[in-house]
Amino acid sequence: MAGSELTNLRSPRVKAARRLTKRAFREQDRKFLAEGPQAVREALRLDGVTLELFATAEAEQRHSEIVGEAAARGLPVHRVSGEVMAELSQTVTPQGLLAVCGLVHVPLEEALPAEPRLVAVLAHVRDPGNAGTVLRTADAAGADAVVFTDASVDPYNGKCVRASAGSLFHLPVAIGVPVSEAVRHLRRQGLRVLAADGAGKHTLDDVDLSGPTAWIFGNEAWGLPEEVLAEADDVVRVPIYGQAESLNLATAAAVCLYSSARARRHP
Amino acid sequence: MAGSELTNLRSPRVKAARRLTKRAFREQDRKFLAEGPQAVREALRLDGVTLELFATAEAEQRHSEIVGEAAARGLPVHRVSGEVMAELSQTVTPQGLLAVCGLVHVPLEEALPAEPRLVAVLAHVRDPGNAGTVLRTADAAGADAVVFTDASVDPYNGKCVRASAGSLFHLPVAIGVPVSEAVRHLRRQGLRVLAADGAGKHTLDDVDLSGPTAWIFGNEAWGLPEEVLAEADDVVRVPIYGQAESLNLATAAAVCLYSSARARRHP
Repeated sequence: MAGSELTNLRSPRVKAARRLTKRAFREQDRKFLAEGPQAVREALRLDGVTLELFATAEAEQRHSEIVGEAAARGLPVHRVSGEVMAELSQTVTPQGLLAVCGLVHVPLEEALPAEPRLVAVLAHVRDPGNAGTVLRTADAAGADAVVFTDASVDPYNGKCVRASAGSLFHLPVAIGVPVSEAVRHLRRQGLRVLAADGAGKHTLDDVDLSGPTAWIFGNEAWGLPEEVLAEADDVVRVPIYGQAESLNLATAAAVCLYSSARARRHP
Repeated sequence: MAGSELTNLRSPRVKAARRLTKRAFREQDRKFLAEGPQAVREALRLDGVTLELFATAEAEQRHSEIVGEAAARGLPVHRVSGEVMAELSQTVTPQGLLAVCGLVHVPLEEALPAEPRLVAVLAHVRDPGNAGTVLRTADAAGADAVVFTDASVDPYNGKCVRASAGSLFHLPVAIGVPVSEAVRHLRRQGLRVLAADGAGKHTLDDVDLSGPTAWIFGNEAWGLPEEVLAEADDVVRVPIYGQAESLNLATAAAVCLYSSARARRHP
């Protein structure tokens, strides 16, 4: 624990962390920010991921077990003023705890176990909150991995990290993969590749989901492009039983992923 | 169509609409705002709900069928400047179309059909975006009605209306009902009342959902209070197959509502 409190917004340490709110600098420095006690706790569970911690005096007290764990591992813990935390934080009401982490994604080839059963692919998801929510849901549904294609949002975006609620640290994530490459690889690994799209011929009620499945999810507004639909083994829609035109992307993904997870357990 | 464009932010008409962004005035005036082409289109499908329309010149052209429909019904359509629309709008990028509507909720007793099959109850949902998403999902899952208890957010909140994507106009919504009153009424109508909570003894995999079901959803952060859990016929959790601590509220609601909807069709 550093004895004195960092109060200078212009200190090199604060500026070095602050620049990680921008994607270009995250890629250059190979680091990102994980904010809030939940994300920091989950980051600390992985060896070598957390590089340093920023904490306000108040958060240090409230989350003493987290800060203590970081200190016990020999990680630098910087006590910062509320003003400095506000500068680093990307939330309206910062929770006083923020970790600088090394990137956690892995190459697609290393993301999957020998016999994968469930994988989520975010093909054109642009909203970081939606992407993080799908990542969290995939984790909850027991997915083996999540793939962010090259046309999707950066999973290290602060909003995505936050919405993932720690799940970014729970399961293998591959990023920047062209969608057709992802489809080919997943199919080679024995997964049936299903595109989730409102234009699907089949509904979730018509398909057998008890086998190994990869789900591809598209854009919030316009779904998946033709070429992705053409590459999938099947295009499947969530049935709409009422008058709604469609479902929110993260909601539709939840229904699909849990349908697969449960069909596999109760075929 | 009014010939001239409203440009004065202080005009009585603009001020009368603008005050509807506040709950107290919505309740006093018995009106609310529905923003964007999707919400306005759905509002217009209901007789007598839309009271007047504000549209920018650009939106009037782009959504001529909606504006034409309003005009054909004899509704006042006010052409407004972009600046006036920005004053009325609650979004960062206004879509140029906004309706003043009369409240659409009904008493709980009138919300349910003779033999209800699926009802969603929002018991302590505070985030309007989440509430609107659950409303949209309930609509998609074919729910008969949605109940907002007295401890939940106002469904006429702009963010909730927007997240509902028109569903506020699709199915009966009851508001301001104490949760125990809602539970009693739903049970009298033949529904089994299930509380969705991470602390549930049973998981979705263990319960038979083929019968008529009412789901109670709680708060984003702390779930449902003890007294609600005690009043329900059963407390059910969505199984977590991976490492995630929990699911996002709207996501969990989607999994529950669709499990019921599908179990009823494929028992």
